[in-house]
Amino acid sequence: MTERIDQLYNGAVKIIQSDDVFSFSLDAVLLADFTRLGPRYQVVDLCAGNGAVGLFLSRKTKGPITLVEIQQKLAEMAQRSVVLNHLSDQVQVANIDLKEAPQILGSDQADAVTCNPPYFADHELSLKNPNPYYAMARHEISTSLNEVLAVSAKLLKTNGHFFMVHRPERLDEIMVKLQANRLAPKRLRFVYPKADREANMVLIEAIKDGRPNGVRIQPPLTVYREDNTYTDAVSQILYGTEER
Amino acid sequence: MTERIDQLYNGAVKIIQSDDVFSFSLDAVLLADFTRLGPRYQVVDLCAGNGAVGLFLSRKTKGPITLVEIQQKLAEMAQRSVVLNHLSDQVQVANIDLKEAPQILGSDQADAVTCNPPYFADHELSLKNPNPYYAMARHEISTSLNEVLAVSAKLLKTNGHFFMVHRPERLDEIMVKLQANRLAPKRLRFVYPKADREANMVLIEAIKDGRPNGVRIQPPLTVYREDNTYTDAVSQILYGTEER
Repeated sequence: MTERIDQLYNGAVKIIQSDDVFSFSLDAVLLADFTRLGPRYQVVDLCAGNGAVGLFLSRKTKGPITLVEIQQKLAEMAQRSVVLNHLSDQVQVANIDLKEAPQILGSDQADAVTCNPPYFADHELSLKNPNPYYAMARHEISTSLNEVLAVSAKLLKTNGHFFMVHRPERLDEIMVKLQANRLAPKRLRFVYPKADREANMVLIEAIKDGRPNGVRIQPPLTVYREDNTYTDAVSQILYGTEER
Repeated sequence: MTERIDQLYNGAVKIIQSDDVFSFSLDAVLLADFTRLGPRYQVVDLCAGNGAVGLFLSRKTKGPITLVEIQQKLAEMAQRSVVLNHLSDQVQVANIDLKEAPQILGSDQADAVTCNPPYFADHELSLKNPNPYYAMARHEISTSLNEVLAVSAKLLKTNGHFFMVHRPERLDEIMVKLQANRLAPKRLRFVYPKADREANMVLIEAIKDGRPNGVRIQPPLTVYREDNTYTDAVSQILYGTEER
């Protein structure tokens, strides 16, 4: 397996990556940027992959962060990245199916749950990646949107915060299933590849047992300028050194 | 009652307005701009007010347009604007409660329904405008979001198009109630007062009995530049002369 180490935030975070299994992408960086944490929040990151989101979040809280990843190879890479970043005291990796997370990690305890889930419904006809690592990370093979939301709601305290990145195509289903799982949508941000293009990502914050009709739509985030270089906003998120 | 005549689209549409009852605003202009109609669409505009949306739409289709407005004074003003614009052959005004619209206008017949509904839930504690015309136009006194959606779905043919402008705060409720009323959200556009501010309007297209998971988020629409003048996009919508 070919591995490399990617660095973010001016080298403040190092992530062991491998294109053989699955590499984190801009989605993970934007989810971490969108997530707001208190200084001592207890955090669970579901569908953690190689740990990118959880490692990024270690810069936003001093509280304990648990990375939940079902795929053994990815969980092992995440664990090695934790050690590489000297975060063993703060970040632990649980190589478990997220279904088991409430029982193993405890219910009604997390202040925040984050998730960069598989985006695509596992329809028989959908074109899956022949690489099984990619297929599981991208398609709802081992979990589903509804399961992710149900597990997140179980893990969270009342008024705990849920943060997710997903595809706008499924916003209809996302909004219904959030609310069916006691998660009140509170803050959305749409990500546009260019200023005149349709959004290709949505960032969502929801509050467990929060009140309805308080949705805020944050300013749009555009990734690329006309000349295909990153906008200032995204450069700042990717390369900025300041704590955000 | 003090009246004036406002002109839009380089004078192509004239609207009789009165601040004593309720004047159309940017919301109506943006809803009409967002609405897509076929050349012979049968259109119903609910909560029509003084007829602004319906009059604007007469530039987008040759099909019949029915304006439904419960308030007699507003319906009369709309009727006079229809005559003023020489549209009596195309546009009719129905001074009825929208609850009666499917029975009076027919079920499963409209190709498109448009609506700029009251935005605010009629909670007892909410601060209502003491002017009863404004109060009814802004607050859910005589109708509700769910009723608007249920009536729209009844009026529409299968695969008919529903277009609405609303407040993003209620997006959670809107998304659930659209789908509960057989209206599949298909296209959303968020309107931001300035580039770095939160959205204060959402434009929504839904399809009766449409398939789920096909939501498209259009490029953001920003109303004002930093110097408080209209952006090019909004100037074009407000003052442009071309058919859009």
